[in-house]
Amino acid sequence: MKVYIEPIGKLINEFSKLPGVGAKTAQRFAYKVVNMTDEEARAFSEAILNVKRNVKYCKICGNFSEEDVCDICKNRSTETICVVKEPKDVIAIEKLNEFDGVYHVLHGTISPLDGIGPNDINIKGLLSRISGNGVREVIMATNPDVEGEATAMYITNLIKPLGIKVTRIAHGIPVGTDLEYADEVSLARAFVDRKTL
Amino acid sequence: MKVYIEPIGKLINEFSKLPGVGAKTAQRFAYKVVNMTDEEARAFSEAILNVKRNVKYCKICGNFSEEDVCDICKNRSTETICVVKEPKDVIAIEKLNEFDGVYHVLHGTISPLDGIGPNDINIKGLLSRISGNGVREVIMATNPDVEGEATAMYITNLIKPLGIKVTRIAHGIPVGTDLEYADEVSLARAFVDRKTL
Repeated sequence: MKVYIEPIGKLINEFSKLPGVGAKTAQRFAYKVVNMTDEEARAFSEAILNVKRNVKYCKICGNFSEEDVCDICKNRSTETICVVKEPKDVIAIEKLNEFDGVYHVLHGTISPLDGIGPNDINIKGLLSRISGNGVREVIMATNPDVEGEATAMYITNLIKPLGIKVTRIAHGIPVGTDLEYADEVSLARAFVDRKTL
Repeated sequence: MKVYIEPIGKLINEFSKLPGVGAKTAQRFAYKVVNMTDEEARAFSEAILNVKRNVKYCKICGNFSEEDVCDICKNRSTETICVVKEPKDVIAIEKLNEFDGVYHVLHGTISPLDGIGPNDINIKGLLSRISGNGVREVIMATNPDVEGEATAMYITNLIKPLGIKVTRIAHGIPVGTDLEYADEVSLARAFVDRKTL
């Protein structure tokens, strides 16, 4: 006989589609939902539909937005554009409260092995934003992995000839890490990118 | 400014209510939902509502059921009743495919510190099932913690005078564990409950 009754089995199946959620965790989540009040379950269910209904991509920067143009693009100076891979990178940077320019979300990085070329990510949008809009600096904030570096290099080669300053976020050993425990690649980068005091 | 746009913030908030889900994980889940197709999101949302709508408790054993009486109570011999704390314990035992009797779900254990007494859990239902229904054995399968043991003892004292065999699942060192690494309480129990070969 089947172990779970159907509605619970189905919900467990849905929860297991979430990243990093295995069978046991999905089961715990499903039991939690069973024990929710009707009100709570409705709010949960509604929040999921709501995200699909009300979240679109800003048509300027590609970040998540409730309207055609996101709040960041509406309200900030476009002198500095920070280029990131995904919307969640925008959140990570916004949480710092350090950067007050605008973003450009590529929605991916160039990765020939996965069949993702320059035309598959939002590079064209970036180029059209740059041409004649008073942009002074483009900060490449893609991840420090092979694809992120390659994408940063590719875009740099396109933009630099336009006379716009292109920068890359610094890599090195994380703050608070003992040299002894730093990974070798980061430590090597920290030496290459050392600065004069 | 707020870091998340409202629909995403709300969904992250909903996901953080799930057991063991913190802010970062909730964010990953929410992004996963944003990237789902409309179809997938609807199925997910529907599964949550469905569980609330269609899952009730079996009025005989207290386990989850789609109908008034669950499949287990409908189809199996009631000679042996296995008493457990929660519906998920039923699942754990059913997965073994070893036990072919029926269950009784207490929905809690006696825990004076939390203000849960014998009348707050489903003991009455168990007693009324036992009286005059040809029950031969009651297996106490509550957890091997203080509350589980106390509840097992309490119920045993009620049932034994009725002339019904009451058993307790065995405790000891888990199969596959080295003695060296077994916890002391389990190892002590393994000695006390040793059996003649």
